[in-house]
Amino acid sequence: MTASPAFEPIELRSDNAAGVAPEMLAAVAAANEGSAIAYGGDRLTAALRELVRDVFEHAHAEVFPVVSGTAANSLALSALCPPWGSVLCHESAHIIVNEGGATSLFSGGGVMRGLPGDQYRISPQAVQQAFDRTNWGDPHHSQPAVLSLTCPTDFGTVYSPSQIAELTALAHSRGLRTHLDGARLANAVVAQRCPPAALLTHSGIDAFSLGAIKNGALSTDAIVCFQPEASEQLVYRVKRAGHVASKMRFQSAQLVAYLTDGLWLRLAQRANDAMAQLSTGLRALDMELLAEPEANMLFARVGAEATERLKASGLLFYEMPGGVVRFVCSFQTTADDVAEVLRRAEVALS
Amino acid sequence: MTASPAFEPIELRSDNAAGVAPEMLAAVAAANEGSAIAYGGDRLTAALRELVRDVFEHAHAEVFPVVSGTAANSLALSALCPPWGSVLCHESAHIIVNEGGATSLFSGGGVMRGLPGDQYRISPQAVQQAFDRTNWGDPHHSQPAVLSLTCPTDFGTVYSPSQIAELTALAHSRGLRTHLDGARLANAVVAQRCPPAALLTHSGIDAFSLGAIKNGALSTDAIVCFQPEASEQLVYRVKRAGHVASKMRFQSAQLVAYLTDGLWLRLAQRANDAMAQLSTGLRALDMELLAEPEANMLFARVGAEATERLKASGLLFYEMPGGVVRFVCSFQTTADDVAEVLRRAEVALS
Amino acid sequence: MTASPAFEPIELRSDNAAGVAPEMLAAVAAANEGSAIAYGGDRLTAALRELVRDVFEHAHAEVFPVVSGTAANSLALSALCPPWGSVLCHESAHIIVNEGGATSLFSGGGVMRGLPGDQYRISPQAVQQAFDRTNWGDPHHSQPAVLSLTCPTDFGTVYSPSQIAELTALAHSRGLRTHLDGARLANAVVAQRCPPAALLTHSGIDAFSLGAIKNGALSTDAIVCFQPEASEQLVYRVKRAGHVASKMRFQSAQLVAYLTDGLWLRLAQRANDAMAQLSTGLRALDMELLAEPEANMLFARVGAEATERLKASGLLFYEMPGGVVRFVCSFQTTADDVAEVLRRAEVALS
Amino acid sequence: MTASPAFEPIELRSDNAAGVAPEMLAAVAAANEGSAIAYGGDRLTAALRELVRDVFEHAHAEVFPVVSGTAANSLALSALCPPWGSVLCHESAHIIVNEGGATSLFSGGGVMRGLPGDQYRISPQAVQQAFDRTNWGDPHHSQPAVLSLTCPTDFGTVYSPSQIAELTALAHSRGLRTHLDGARLANAVVAQRCPPAALLTHSGIDAFSLGAIKNGALSTDAIVCFQPEASEQLVYRVKRAGHVASKMRFQSAQLVAYLTDGLWLRLAQRANDAMAQLSTGLRALDMELLAEPEANMLFARVGAEATERLKASGLLFYEMPGGVVRFVCSFQTTADDVAEVLRRAEVALS
Repeated sequence: MTASPAFEPIELRSDNAAGVAPEMLAAVAAANEGSAIAYGGDRLTAALRELVRDVFEHAHAEVFPVVSGTAANSLALSALCPPWGSVLCHESAHIIVNEGGATSLFSGGGVMRGLPGDQYRISPQAVQQAFDRTNWGDPHHSQPAVLSLTCPTDFGTVYSPSQIAELTALAHSRGLRTHLDGARLANAVVAQRCPPAALLTHSGIDAFSLGAIKNGALSTDAIVCFQPEASEQLVYRVKRAGHVASKMRFQSAQLVAYLTDGLWLRLAQRANDAMAQLSTGLRALDMELLAEPEANMLFARVGAEATERLKASGLLFYEMPGGVVRFVCSFQTTADDVAEVLRRAEVALS
Repeated sequence: MTASPAFEPIELRSDNAAGVAPEMLAAVAAANEGSAIAYGGDRLTAALRELVRDVFEHAHAEVFPVVSGTAANSLALSALCPPWGSVLCHESAHIIVNEGGATSLFSGGGVMRGLPGDQYRISPQAVQQAFDRTNWGDPHHSQPAVLSLTCPTDFGTVYSPSQIAELTALAHSRGLRTHLDGARLANAVVAQRCPPAALLTHSGIDAFSLGAIKNGALSTDAIVCFQPEASEQLVYRVKRAGHVASKMRFQSAQLVAYLTDGLWLRLAQRANDAMAQLSTGLRALDMELLAEPEANMLFARVGAEATERLKASGLLFYEMPGGVVRFVCSFQTTADDVAEVLRRAEVALS
Repeated sequence: MTASPAFEPIELRSDNAAGVAPEMLAAVAAANEGSAIAYGGDRLTAALRELVRDVFEHAHAEVFPVVSGTAANSLALSALCPPWGSVLCHESAHIIVNEGGATSLFSGGGVMRGLPGDQYRISPQAVQQAFDRTNWGDPHHSQPAVLSLTCPTDFGTVYSPSQIAELTALAHSRGLRTHLDGARLANAVVAQRCPPAALLTHSGIDAFSLGAIKNGALSTDAIVCFQPEASEQLVYRVKRAGHVASKMRFQSAQLVAYLTDGLWLRLAQRANDAMAQLSTGLRALDMELLAEPEANMLFARVGAEATERLKASGLLFYEMPGGVVRFVCSFQTTADDVAEVLRRAEVALS
Repeated sequence: MTASPAFEPIELRSDNAAGVAPEMLAAVAAANEGSAIAYGGDRLTAALRELVRDVFEHAHAEVFPVVSGTAANSLALSALCPPWGSVLCHESAHIIVNEGGATSLFSGGGVMRGLPGDQYRISPQAVQQAFDRTNWGDPHHSQPAVLSLTCPTDFGTVYSPSQIAELTALAHSRGLRTHLDGARLANAVVAQRCPPAALLTHSGIDAFSLGAIKNGALSTDAIVCFQPEASEQLVYRVKRAGHVASKMRFQSAQLVAYLTDGLWLRLAQRANDAMAQLSTGLRALDMELLAEPEANMLFARVGAEATERLKASGLLFYEMPGGVVRFVCSFQTTADDVAEVLRRAEVALS
């Protein structure tokens, strides 16, 4: 039973449905030589630490490989936010909506406080308003302790370095620390055409999740932390969360390959380029995009009927409420894939 | 600067310093084809579930891949023990001594209660005594809720199926659930020359850690759970601990390869055989072994001077208090390695 | 330096600024005779249990005296909501806004999820919408586990028994449990002119906070629980929160006096009557009330200038954003107090 | 039905079975005048703060009234010990044995580590040994963070100021903080015939539980904290544990009366004196005391038969394993009570 070529599935559900970048798989295989002390005492983990300091231009950056973005976000926040604190974030943020309470678990009761904001971005006004509504120092009220930005947002939009800098300055002015959920960090860096440090280090971010899994890694994301006190805590917090991999050399090997010679940015460029090509094509078909895609994700309102036809054509994607569909490109999405998606969309939408 | 062959390091520190078994690395590479839905909805994770049910002879077993033994133990215990309960275990158990409080974190405050016992094994008498000393139903006192056995123990000794059955029957008689820390489970199964289910399923174990990392895996251990209510909890508990790998197919691929056609037992057999050969040889050199090694680990009292000579000879091992050394063999320890260790030991001990 | 009578302070800030009802203080003094076993094994605590079962018409109700409403709410919720669950409540609820994260602490990470609703009341539509937006069974999403109503609300409005019954039926239909924050429960019962059981037991509430402190008690509120499994948990949960008073007979003595012969309702009637008299008088002065006060609290928009004049006249009250003031009457607010407030308000508002 | 005088019960079970000291009940009644802002903003709570600073001779001491010793201990420890830390204490300490896991709950997973020690006292050698066995800085191992002493111990023995000073110096030398469980603090101060500050402030204690309930209070113990960073945390930690009493003036009133003009020491002196008289008498009857009672508690081995006769004579006391009985005197134990106990004991033991 063979499907006709027209119905071969094309993957647009999520970049975490993609496979492993060959360079990273090769790095794992290359690390499989001899024995190495467990839990991060190995040579590759040391190399990773140096590389992170170099790439993000921070002499005291620490890096903690962990197995998922949920772990990266919630462990970083637990070291930045006291148990009675709150984390200000967009009301759509993954840390509120999609992590099953991991953030309150690891922080010992910290509260995620959602702020509104167009296109899933928080504005300085929204932060200021949250500050104004806070009874500072009153123990009845969870005290704002961290500002967490998601970049790219779950809507595919990207903060610019200057937008981030304005928000972190405001946060720091009230003693908050700053966190960035970078599940798709490379896609944001590439979108902004800036050095990685411009978006993070030089924009006032204290700790961030370095997403790698959605962009070609096998089994690891990482926390990067510039805040010495939080880094000291993370040594213990990551361990007692069970996230210190025993054979950490194989996690570090992936991340070393990822950050070496800009592989991470090249992989993300492919995904962003595919998305740019796709969105241009879909606009030409008069599809109603909810926003201009800035990274590797788009949302479009196509209605229930066209959605069914798109599904029937073999496209794999997520449906959102209100007849909206989400398409995500990964480093594995080829120009041929995009062309084929456009062919099928033309039929489905006509 | 080349070391003379006599001083080539030989790895005896821990089996988690070993590399990845080629069969498991190949399975990862083979899984890297096409796209697959994330978080365990993939084909390989489904296959793993079936395989676990088959190997452990339990129709409703559930399996949860996680990145470390710490995660496997502490998450399983969190689903078996209420926050006000206590876990009875040997006073040397990893869950007390070596997991940095992970067990209290994930259980929301559960207490590990250490019991004494020869050769790191708990006796039914010690369990009965703990029961006798408990004020059952008194909320001032943490209520015994789980009996956790470690097999092989951190001393390298192994419980027999009948020993386990006697302990679990006692635990169940007072309403406790039963857990087994199987960080080196394959080594125990091989040592007991029994089917895996004899040691676990048929001996009254409710949930266990299926160690794979110390025996050739790349990045995953797993929880196996026979207790439906606990399994239901684990769906949520594992997620909010950040241990649901996004690209789970690559974790499942390792475990499928591991459990297929007895690979896990063949790998463990190599480690146990190497240890048997090594301990026989060391006894012949009059080394004082603290116990007869039953799996892949031995402890010997050699004194401070001989310890220094052993280190100087290039052997890599852990030193314990009191002039005791610990040697661990892995699936990668060859007969040649053992012969070379014995040669150097002969010199060092003479 | 004596203040002129016109400037004697009159207390309208909160009913928790009031003193202790003489009947309850007398009950404490009467309990101070002989010795009594600690931690609730005493005669008065036994009497309290029987009284609660009688007043709330539930043969298996359990009662747990605790020192504050925060403890009552957050401990009850911790027994009703698993650590990965969420509690649906009004976005203004005390359990979100005013308890400093107590709810996530005691539940081990449970998430409070605020719903919108006019006059601080949740509508069945809002609950249904929350259900519709939930990915049931998806561990990425906190699963709705409890519906918590506040009655009277923090806006002074009251749910009717039939409104509560409709909401709890909806909640139970999806497997949620139901909780009522009754910090001012007596005021609600009196406002509804119904038997206490009509508002709670017969309306499908599973557990509630029995507020006593704001209505004349010295040092205790209580949890009342109809749900046997939750009650069993609360024995341990209350203890390990440090809320099992050692000399519990003195806490129980207060609550026994409170619930005996309707003292609690008579005290609340005084507060509600004073508020009715006050709101009638303020309306006659053309003050803009934000809602018809249904219990012992009103909110009025008076503007910044009149607020200052009201303060200068010696009235003690809380200011809210937007030129709104909050007035609360307690069981100690007399008819003379109300008359005097109205006299001063007439001057301040003219 | 009247019991013969010989069988009137005499209370020796626990000092928490005693009633309220009249002076403290009068203070509560006196506080019941007018209204007062809730949650500690009142005049009496301010007075309490000053009094604590005066009595304990520390200009920056902070005091937090809470409803139980369990709350006082576990909240104080939560502010002194990070979630990955351990608290070194005697293996018999209440915080391990009798608080149902409150310490791990409030600390977010901290581990209580029991040390051996004669007569329930920890020796410097035991602390040093614990230090020697610690892998400092290794996240696999809970890091010692607090030394907690119980004084008087649960065995009725008392540390001297110099013993405490030696232990706290050792603890501070390794960066630990120091805590004292003073559930019966007044009895220890009286036993040592020293100023309160000599036992605490000048002996290097960072925070302690100020027990009041067992010595005449109605409904409150307190945390006293000399450590500014911990005090800052406690503002939030106490609130979100539900231990900030709404009408705190009535809790503070008790403690103000308690600490004013040495009432607390006079009450404890009565209990210690009664115990001294009782133990002298019992020795004269050849009863085998397990230790010389230093405060208000004794343990004696009397065997099963004599225990039954003592119970039959109307004495109320606790039985321990091995035919041991525990007798506790309170501030309410009179000389007549003691004489009557001795009369009955003479009969029972003969």
